[in-house]
Amino acid sequence: MATLYYFEGRGKAELIRLCLAAAKIEFKDHFLYERAEFLKLMEDGKLLFNQLPLLEIDGKFLTQSNACVRYVGRKAGLCGKNDDEAAQIDMLYEGGRDFMTPFLPIVFKPEAEVLETIKSKTMPRYMPIFDKVAATNGTGYLVGGGLTLADLSVLEALLACVEYFGMECFNGFPALKKVYETVTSLDTISGFLKSSHRMRKNDDRYITEVKRVLAW
Amino acid sequence: MATLYYFEGRGKAELIRLCLAAAKIEFKDHFLYERAEFLKLMEDGKLLFNQLPLLEIDGKFLTQSNACVRYVGRKAGLCGKNDDEAAQIDMLYEGGRDFMTPFLPIVFKPEAEVLETIKSKTMPRYMPIFDKVAATNGTGYLVGGGLTLADLSVLEALLACVEYFGMECFNGFPALKKVYETVTSLDTISGFLKSSHRMRKNDDRYITEVKRVLAW
Repeated sequence: MATLYYFEGRGKAELIRLCLAAAKIEFKDHFLYERAEFLKLMEDGKLLFNQLPLLEIDGKFLTQSNACVRYVGRKAGLCGKNDDEAAQIDMLYEGGRDFMTPFLPIVFKPEAEVLETIKSKTMPRYMPIFDKVAATNGTGYLVGGGLTLADLSVLEALLACVEYFGMECFNGFPALKKVYETVTSLDTISGFLKSSHRMRKNDDRYITEVKRVLAW
Repeated sequence: MATLYYFEGRGKAELIRLCLAAAKIEFKDHFLYERAEFLKLMEDGKLLFNQLPLLEIDGKFLTQSNACVRYVGRKAGLCGKNDDEAAQIDMLYEGGRDFMTPFLPIVFKPEAEVLETIKSKTMPRYMPIFDKVAATNGTGYLVGGGLTLADLSVLEALLACVEYFGMECFNGFPALKKVYETVTSLDTISGFLKSSHRMRKNDDRYITEVKRVLAW
């Protein structure tokens, strides 16, 4: 049983949650609401860079979200079968993080403004690229014939696109739509999305809690 | 022979250069000065996300700097001997990237202002953490008994610290100083730092070239 320490929200932890679900690793969400809990984790030496999220797994305390994702990804065989696949996965994984980044300020900045930028710049930039990769690969996954960290990284951004703009966001991008449908149809992922592990969208309560814990 | 396509500067490519040097992979720096060259690379389909740097290696065209670093790191055995080391390396690698980030705007923003923030916030935040890790490991490297991507990631930031603040930046951090000295004493790294592959600091010419190529 792993434990993920973070705020009660998506933020930097949601991709780790997706990976844990994909890897079929049971975990507990430990939500932080008060500054004292955060200070206690620091005092106990569990937060290498004094940052959240923190993933407690296999007797280790892992921080830095990409490091947590990779640890889980390696355990579950989501990092590719050879150096060629690994390179493809890494490139698309990083591209997926870039695709997701503009969504992160939602509610920290005015939502309408953030979404307008995403609609006019981010989606037109990334959707055609990932669609082309998906069409070329042709398996319903971005790399090879099964789920990898590339799919999960891009999925997080696609979930946000669908949530804010509807399935029409895939108009003109049928291969990417197929990746979305393939991955969200997996028992592990569909189960996760229906579970209490799937966090709600950013809202004012989340912002208040983050600011209180981090003393912003 | 690999080829690294980037501006004639450090930016997002310098860590890839450090890794290529550490891996003893010969490479050519292909500098871009004109927008037409950048557009040509895009038209030729070599830039997956229409971004530089681009690393041509083993018949592949790799983009996203972390993906390039990992590809080279895997070839050279710099990613750890087991899952435990890999997790440590990944955490410190990401922390090293965070440590380096505040240096990147130098000359894009007023240098004195950037350096003041680094001196008052970035160095006091990161130096004690990496020093403690180095002291605990005790080998002159951050993880295990030899060079890894963790050392190279942190080294890039330490090289910048020394360049702008002198060796006194290590006062109070003897274990981290030892890592710096150990790594910069390696033939591969000391050779690189003396070579034409080591780029000069950001200057106005660099900014002008970047802006021209990217049409900022």
